[in-house]
Amino acid sequence: MAILLASRFGAHDLAVWRDALQGVLPEETLLTEPVAGRAHEIDIALAANPPAGALRGLPALRLVQSLWAGVEGLLADRSLPADVPLARMVDPAMNAAMAETAAWAVLSLHRGFFDYAAQQREARWQTHRQRRADEVCVGVLGLGEMGRTVALRLVRDGYRVMGWSTRAAPVAGVHTGAGEAALNALLSAAEIVINLLPLTPATRGFFDARRLAQLRPGAALVNLARGAHVVDEALLAALDAGQIGHAVLDAFEHEPLPAAHPYWSHPKVTLLPHVAAQTDPRSAAQVVAGNVRALRAGRPLAHLVDRSRGY
Amino acid sequence: MAILLASRFGAHDLAVWRDALQGVLPEETLLTEPVAGRAHEIDIALAANPPAGALRGLPALRLVQSLWAGVEGLLADRSLPADVPLARMVDPAMNAAMAETAAWAVLSLHRGFFDYAAQQREARWQTHRQRRADEVCVGVLGLGEMGRTVALRLVRDGYRVMGWSTRAAPVAGVHTGAGEAALNALLSAAEIVINLLPLTPATRGFFDARRLAQLRPGAALVNLARGAHVVDEALLAALDAGQIGHAVLDAFEHEPLPAAHPYWSHPKVTLLPHVAAQTDPRSAAQVVAGNVRALRAGRPLAHLVDRSRGY
Repeated sequence: MAILLASRFGAHDLAVWRDALQGVLPEETLLTEPVAGRAHEIDIALAANPPAGALRGLPALRLVQSLWAGVEGLLADRSLPADVPLARMVDPAMNAAMAETAAWAVLSLHRGFFDYAAQQREARWQTHRQRRADEVCVGVLGLGEMGRTVALRLVRDGYRVMGWSTRAAPVAGVHTGAGEAALNALLSAAEIVINLLPLTPATRGFFDARRLAQLRPGAALVNLARGAHVVDEALLAALDAGQIGHAVLDAFEHEPLPAAHPYWSHPKVTLLPHVAAQTDPRSAAQVVAGNVRALRAGRPLAHLVDRSRGY
Repeated sequence: MAILLASRFGAHDLAVWRDALQGVLPEETLLTEPVAGRAHEIDIALAANPPAGALRGLPALRLVQSLWAGVEGLLADRSLPADVPLARMVDPAMNAAMAETAAWAVLSLHRGFFDYAAQQREARWQTHRQRRADEVCVGVLGLGEMGRTVALRLVRDGYRVMGWSTRAAPVAGVHTGAGEAALNALLSAAEIVINLLPLTPATRGFFDARRLAQLRPGAALVNLARGAHVVDEALLAALDAGQIGHAVLDAFEHEPLPAAHPYWSHPKVTLLPHVAAQTDPRSAAQVVAGNVRALRAGRPLAHLVDRSRGY
């Protein structure tokens, strides 16, 4: 049997991934395209944002392993076989990278480093009052692998951390809750709200005008999940009205973000080109190898997606 | 007896400090200027960057307690009584703030967040390779209270950390050394060098052209200590030559930094208006109270400055 690596990687990334995967799975045949006549050999597909339809016509397929954490793109591909198990990527290095990005965003907001950067551009020397981390309440929305890792790092960094998820999920040192009342409590208490929700039909457009109005006046929004969680027009209006004091945005509905988009030049927006956390081929290859060997040995697979929930 | 708070504070800061100090020392008489006829009562002076000569003519003075960590300004005041003990401020909240600033600078350099900020100003969507923290070597110069706190936080954040000080000072998880050979080893290994040395005659102009040339090509310099540690012309030349890839500067020989200084607009300089770590009046007042009570009770004083060393 063979493994298909279905991606839109350029030559460099393709070589990096192929080397990492073959290194941990030397006994496996790794194809980077469904070579004519070999489609029937492919029982595992590794999916890194492949073109729609790339997983069609693979009669022996028994596992689709995403190389990304988010799978909403795969699930939107109607040619994805409905009866083949789909596994998300849960990469420890990617979780650590996400926690770093969240820690940087929170530090920058807490200590005024975005403001000092703006002052530098005006050659303006002005100090602001220094607050302790334990005076700052941070809310984390979504307590999956990434949300938990982020929340624990912020606790370690000394912040007061609240967490929310659709299902109750205790995290040491974090005030967690589920349901609408807990969500309202978090949104009205946190001065920094970090979005790490999965993108599902229920969370699309989560940050609309109504919800942005529930945040503390002047609160900051840090979106490290998906662009479609945020209604851009509502966020821009809330920034201009002062209801949202600052936004750190890593993901956008259309990427690359068009050069004419108002986010680029908005003084209250810090924009990242979808780099909050990238899969690390070295550690991710280990995760892939775990699931490949589990499938071959008939053991349970890890990180399977519940398609009815969308993550 | 009475305590003199000698400062250049404005009305707001003066009130904050007076309240914090009186709150922990309710039994003490606190003067904010040497009122005529009461100078002989003053046996303790708290010094927050007072004008030169402010501590002259206090015949009963038995302790000068700085409210700042650095005392080179006080030591430069020739009217400071040579035989009165001088104590530095070692404020846990200030140490924590310094560790936050160092962590933010290192995260920003490691993860390319300064570069992404520059890209945002050009509306340029471009991703860079993500590295793990353990692939980044950070060097910390100076392993006093602040240097140690910074080094330990960076270890906790996953970096490879080297430390250097004039006297050997072991720090858990940090590769430390003393002396010229260890300094050379650190400068040639670290891709981020953080300066937390005390300012003394031996460290003035520490980062001159010769030493900047010893760093790894493209290394970053993070100066969180004193402006006079850095020879500005040499740093600007090293930045323009690419020998130094980026500089994060919090302190300057002349503050506020003049609006015409080239640092303000240099694309490879991130500039802070001396806010890396401010003394926190709440925790610092506790430290002051400890030394005041020790003096009154005849117990040993904490954090005394060795004037022959300058810190």
